[in-house]
Amino acid sequence: MTITKSETPDETEIHLLIDDWAKALRNKDADGIVSHYAAHSVMFVMAPPLQYTSNNSPGKNGIEEWFATWDGPIGYEIRDVKITASEDVAFSHSLNRMSGTKTDGEKVDMWLRETFCFRRLGGQWKITHQHESVPFYMDGSYKAAVDLKP
Amino acid sequence: MTITKSETPDETEIHLLIDDWAKALRNKDADGIVSHYAAHSVMFVMAPPLQYTSNNSPGKNGIEEWFATWDGPIGYEIRDVKITASEDVAFSHSLNRMSGTKTDGEKVDMWLRETFCFRRLGGQWKITHQHESVPFYMDGSYKAAVDLKP
Repeated sequence: MTITKSETPDETEIHLLIDDWAKALRNKDADGIVSHYAAHSVMFVMAPPLQYTSNNSPGKNGIEEWFATWDGPIGYEIRDVKITASEDVAFSHSLNRMSGTKTDGEKVDMWLRETFCFRRLGGQWKITHQHESVPFYMDGSYKAAVDLKP
Repeated sequence: MTITKSETPDETEIHLLIDDWAKALRNKDADGIVSHYAAHSVMFVMAPPLQYTSNNSPGKNGIEEWFATWDGPIGYEIRDVKITASEDVAFSHSLNRMSGTKTDGEKVDMWLRETFCFRRLGGQWKITHQHESVPFYMDGSYKAAVDLKP
């Protein structure tokens, strides 16, 4: 991502965090991903259940299991990122493209919506809430709209 | 929703805003809904497209058209709401239940995930980003998981 000149130092810090998170995802580095989350974060992700909290979080093992469903590298690109930060509360939203091949041979190339919410905890920005999704078609099919492009 | 004693005054203000937004939705009051958004908000909603910005926002007319697809009242309940606010940036997340009957006879009773991001603009908290979704089944069906319960 390009750091824009209008970002505040906190916004730039969060921008670098998001870049690092995406890099960890591309590198299948579960520790790198987990390092950016607060201990008690609430996650709304693309697969059920409705939410993950510290009660049912898949944690590092869950991320590694998910990595193992990919055959080869995961492509991950972030665009239209917009970050809003105060001194200790911040949020970002972006459109992210995830691509690659699953171990069952399925080719994936989809755009999703990503929202991160952050708090500064112990001097460090951490993700306390994540929401990622695709819309679904309201034509009666209820199919996830994994074929949309920005 | 119950206002918890641990909320800061800003968090309570946002809690009341969310309550008012939900009340406007139940009352099919498009003006009441629109009043809570900033002029340039970015929305990720359950139907395509990937995002609405000020370039393609459906606005009040779009909301009224959506209201017209409901036969009778819209049920709207909010639970597990968690609000985090600093002086001028805030976010919330919750699990929301939407229910009712569409004009084509379809019965709706679904839980969705809702994230709101706020800025204090001109002294008033406004929604600058909204993300609402359901997950989808990763069993090859790609069906939206509209049957989940918290």
